[in-house]
Amino acid sequence: MTVEPLRFEDGALLILDQRALPGEERWIRCVRPAEVADCIRTLAVRGAPAIGIAAAYAMALVDGERGEELGSSADLLRSARPTAVNLAWAVDQVLASGDPLACARRLHREQDAADRRLAALGADRFQRGDRALTHCNAGALATAGYGTAGGVLQAAWERGRLERVWVDETRPLNQGARLTTWELERAGIPHRVVTDSSAGTLMVRGLVDRIVVGADRIAANGDVANKVGTYPLAVLAERHGVPFYVAAPVSTIDPDTAHGGAIPIEERDPSELGAGLSAVNFAFDVTPAELVTAIVTEAGVLEPPYEEAIAGVASR
Amino acid sequence: MTVEPLRFEDGALLILDQRALPGEERWIRCVRPAEVADCIRTLAVRGAPAIGIAAAYAMALVDGERGEELGSSADLLRSARPTAVNLAWAVDQVLASGDPLACARRLHREQDAADRRLAALGADRFQRGDRALTHCNAGALATAGYGTAGGVLQAAWERGRLERVWVDETRPLNQGARLTTWELERAGIPHRVVTDSSAGTLMVRGLVDRIVVGADRIAANGDVANKVGTYPLAVLAERHGVPFYVAAPVSTIDPDTAHGGAIPIEERDPSELGAGLSAVNFAFDVTPAELVTAIVTEAGVLEPPYEEAIAGVASR
Repeated sequence: MTVEPLRFEDGALLILDQRALPGEERWIRCVRPAEVADCIRTLAVRGAPAIGIAAAYAMALVDGERGEELGSSADLLRSARPTAVNLAWAVDQVLASGDPLACARRLHREQDAADRRLAALGADRFQRGDRALTHCNAGALATAGYGTAGGVLQAAWERGRLERVWVDETRPLNQGARLTTWELERAGIPHRVVTDSSAGTLMVRGLVDRIVVGADRIAANGDVANKVGTYPLAVLAERHGVPFYVAAPVSTIDPDTAHGGAIPIEERDPSELGAGLSAVNFAFDVTPAELVTAIVTEAGVLEPPYEEAIAGVASR
Repeated sequence: MTVEPLRFEDGALLILDQRALPGEERWIRCVRPAEVADCIRTLAVRGAPAIGIAAAYAMALVDGERGEELGSSADLLRSARPTAVNLAWAVDQVLASGDPLACARRLHREQDAADRRLAALGADRFQRGDRALTHCNAGALATAGYGTAGGVLQAAWERGRLERVWVDETRPLNQGARLTTWELERAGIPHRVVTDSSAGTLMVRGLVDRIVVGADRIAANGDVANKVGTYPLAVLAERHGVPFYVAAPVSTIDPDTAHGGAIPIEERDPSELGAGLSAVNFAFDVTPAELVTAIVTEAGVLEPPYEEAIAGVASR
């Protein structure tokens, strides 16, 4: 049962407010591009593919009679969050098209189709009885489609190859405990939440057969930016011989970024960790390509050496 | 400025309720052993050495006129939490003594003295400008003395060898964000909180010079049980060449436990991760000895091979 976190109706973009989940299903009605940019910045909508599609719809809201322009709206949307490359990619697609709304609707449909293809390819790697671990949320909420890492889990479940999912809580905003569990619950997939620091214990005990995560940007060499906590998972996976998969559409690959060190890593407000705390709040980290078993895209499952594999699918 | 989380006055044990910190300094007055056992079980007092001392004082509260016995009280206290060996150790010390209160007071004094000795030895390893990372809380609150890992940081700061401390939030109960920051704030030591999953990013960026943690039980081979999240830190430290120190009194060493696999790992109520969540809540993990640079005790700094070094200091 796929969730639809973005709907364009009657000249407005309706955004399912992910900050209020799982307690409440609240919708935000946006009629101006700046309102969508605010929703992206404040995480009402989050997930690299989903914020790209939200931004594309936002471009369709540009109204010259209100003094809005495509160019300045594009700049506003691109700068809403720095790490996910899908945001700039989707805005550029709309700018290059003659019809913003038609383009946004097409990107939305294509995301779902890409998710379903990559989910099927990812599920091919699963075996009956597998217990998978995932971090943050990379399901339908994060893509406005079928989901990337979440789509792989869903497809593996439908084929009888998934026994259960370990869900990292994902601090500080608990996207795993709040959003991924909400999706898995609706899909009827058995799952248990653990603190982000428990993955090592699960692996020591032989309770994790594979790890699947999404991505916010993949560099030309295969380095992967994703929610902070992904890198430690990959290091532990290597130590314990657990396959580590990244599931992402080709639009998440940025051939103009040579390596992970060149990916801008967003630091968010320290208050997300708790009021009054003196904190540093990295939103993402970078997992070096050497720790990634495979990158599952709609154009195929990429394996090392990633430079070649990526050059083969990402030609901008 | 050392905190005193345990005070024995007028025939009662006063326990600083660590669940209410940092918001409120609330004291619980215990006059029965069972009340102290409750405080240990519910984490009003926590930290391996501190729960040992609390249990020792609890034995001094045993009152035959109320039908309490030393033997059954000892059993009750020993079973309050399974992982920290100091609990059983301290109770056994009291049972072997002729005078419970005198013994408890002696253990309390000796803990502080041991902490100060090991803190000085640990600080010897620091160099001016060091940025240290710690996990959970192993300061005065955790030992009822000067602190183990926290004591090392305090001593390094006093000698001008510590620039700042990175404090892991430490899910699910945030002992780092709540308790360690409270101690560091009182001591005037610069610090920043990060999510538990950020340590990898800090190390990639070269922002961590050494890691210091406490311990709940150290096996005869040097394997270390400590708050869950310690093991992933040690794995990351090895990858990045960051020295990884465990600071603990000799009473935390359990020569009767051959290796980490034999240490009972407490699983606490899943509700600690959030109401209604289907979760697994490991309270501790085990770091294999091979990842530990040194174990700092009051009897000296132990280095590999740990079997020999441990046999030399822990003879029960």
